Amino acid sequence: MPTKPKILKASSVAKSRLFEVEALSLRFSNGVERIYERLTSRGHGAVMVIPVTADGQILLINEYAAGIHDYQLTLPKGLVDPGETALEAANRELMEEVGFGARNLDHLKTMTTSPSYMGHKIDVIVATDLYPKRLPGDEPEELEVVPYPIDQLTDLIVEDHFAEARVIAALLLWLQQRQS
Amino acid sequence: MPTKPKILKASSVAKSRLFEVEALSLRFSNGVERIYERLTSRGHGAVMVIPVTADGQILLINEYAAGIHDYQLTLPKGLVDPGETALEAANRELMEEVGFGARNLDHLKTMTTSPSYMGHKIDVIVATDLYPKRLPGDEPEELEVVPYPIDQLTDLIVEDHFAEARVIAALLLWLQQRQS
Repeated sequence: MPTKPKILKASSVAKSRLFEVEALSLRFSNGVERIYERLTSRGHGAVMVIPVTADGQILLINEYAAGIHDYQLTLPKGLVDPGETALEAANRELMEEVGFGARNLDHLKTMTTSPSYMGHKIDVIVATDLYPKRLPGDEPEELEVVPYPIDQLTDLIVEDHFAEARVIAALLLWLQQRQS
Repeated sequence: MPTKPKILKASSVAKSRLFEVEALSLRFSNGVERIYERLTSRGHGAVMVIPVTADGQILLINEYAAGIHDYQLTLPKGLVDPGETALEAANRELMEEVGFGARNLDHLKTMTTSPSYMGHKIDVIVATDLYPKRLPGDEPEELEVVPYPIDQLTDLIVEDHFAEARVIAALLLWLQQRQS
């Protein structure tokens, strides 16, 4: 691995309720200096859940996404609360967003979202042996749950409207692991 | 599809050189009102390139990522310049970051990165029929190019250090399309 650039200075340059931007003064190992900006990581991480039913379906949700100002078919996900493990957070989000708990939770992969600009990581958890269980969440409206047959997932993933990289990566990784 | 929430007000609440945060006052179709924050989309989009050599390798790069303050093995990518098409931007980035041009460029998929918080989209372009061609880029240091055998990609993707969701999604989608 190359030698990492040295961080000469890090300072907060913009801040809102959810986001904070940090400017990094960097000196690369060849002596070149640059100022990079990145989003500061706060919180305790995030989880994304692949809920698998006994009859061969994935439980997707149809959720409003402000960044694209539209609804999108996606996997349940959310932030890890203080004191929670990733598996506990995954089960809570599943209960809040889908109305199921899982007796079995397996860690599939930890993924980064846009590592040049943020340290944000998300743990992908596979939830199986599901049972009905609803917890109240903080969503402004009830989420539509969309059961999707596993054997049709590869067709869904290539459709234009199904575009979220983390969800595509998680489902293809899981399908690949399942086949091997 | 459900009825989209109405945007009652949108205002810029934080701004830096690269980032701008927008607060959206929303009224959901059930009457519930919430304030969401998202990163404002600027620019003309972004591209990620899968460079495929005639002898069965993918050309990865080892690049410093400020968000995680570490080097990572990734695909060449960058912003689309004003007046460029996505295919033109892909070829330019390939010349700048990898030192090759492509006689053949195919659009694979348009992906979103974190649609709840940003409108950012990236076009994945497959580059084949490569020839040596170097253009000067704006990188602070020369990027290490890492040729990787296609038949070992599925092993690489499950490794812990190979974590970027967009890169995993792009490579698995391409491998899947190639097999079918």
